[in-house]
Amino acid sequence: MRILGVDPGTATTGYGVVDRVGADLRIITYGVIRTSSRTETPVRLSRIHTAISEIVQEHRVGCLATERLFFARNEATAFGVGRTIGVVLLAAAEQDLPWTEYTPMQVKQAVVGYGAADKKQVQYMVQRILGLETIPRPDDAADALAVAICHAHTIGRTP
Amino acid sequence: MRILGVDPGTATTGYGVVDRVGADLRIITYGVIRTSSRTETPVRLSRIHTAISEIVQEHRVGCLATERLFFARNEATAFGVGRTIGVVLLAAAEQDLPWTEYTPMQVKQAVVGYGAADKKQVQYMVQRILGLETIPRPDDAADALAVAICHAHTIGRTP
Repeated sequence: MRILGVDPGTATTGYGVVDRVGADLRIITYGVIRTSSRTETPVRLSRIHTAISEIVQEHRVGCLATERLFFARNEATAFGVGRTIGVVLLAAAEQDLPWTEYTPMQVKQAVVGYGAADKKQVQYMVQRILGLETIPRPDDAADALAVAICHAHTIGRTP
Repeated sequence: MRILGVDPGTATTGYGVVDRVGADLRIITYGVIRTSSRTETPVRLSRIHTAISEIVQEHRVGCLATERLFFARNEATAFGVGRTIGVVLLAAAEQDLPWTEYTPMQVKQAVVGYGAADKKQVQYMVQRILGLETIPRPDDAADALAVAICHAHTIGRTP
């Protein structure tokens, strides 16, 4: 099962693709989609939609996982993140990908084994679990990989 | 200039199309796009995206106007409305429509002439301005027409 994790934002949307083969996890790719604040919002959303669609096709992704936002810093942030997740979910629907959403606590629990883990602990475990030489950068890409790992562990537990 | 106004929501997204010919406004169509809460979110967003794209094509819409949300009832609401506006703006970008966003106060000022007008006053003026026999129903469709009227008045004032 090849899993795409996405950490949506307006300026920077992180993505990470991992393969689950038996109990093993293998990293396929990760990175961020950046859009400029000088670009109009509809065009930014169109670029994010296109980029996600291309990642799904290029890497033959089988499912999408995202983190559910709780307590965004403010409503404007929730609104902006919502716009991005809207076009990410649309790309998933257009390619018949199942989508699963996790709370931040579920992601930390799955990756670190401790639901109140801090950002650095999550990043360190993402590096270890995927056998990377360094912590994946930037942070949004590491966050996207964390939610992909969370989904891999969750489907692994399902009989 | 043919204007599409949209009032985005998760369960119900209102739309209204008006034509501005000189100083006159003519109604073309209005209604709501409903999606069921039993349907998965990506599929709901896909239906809204398709419906908006079809309205733009069928009625040869030239521009899009939406209301900027301030002080949503809560972050979950802002997040849900954000998702819908994301796919609405994507539909606009895909068809090269310019997009303008107005505050609720700007819409009330443009439609009623008074930025603190209540919902009923806005609906009554929408009916009068467009020469309708009754107030447009449901409320989300009337709200979408109000933002389309606001945009028509705003571009009418631009030299």
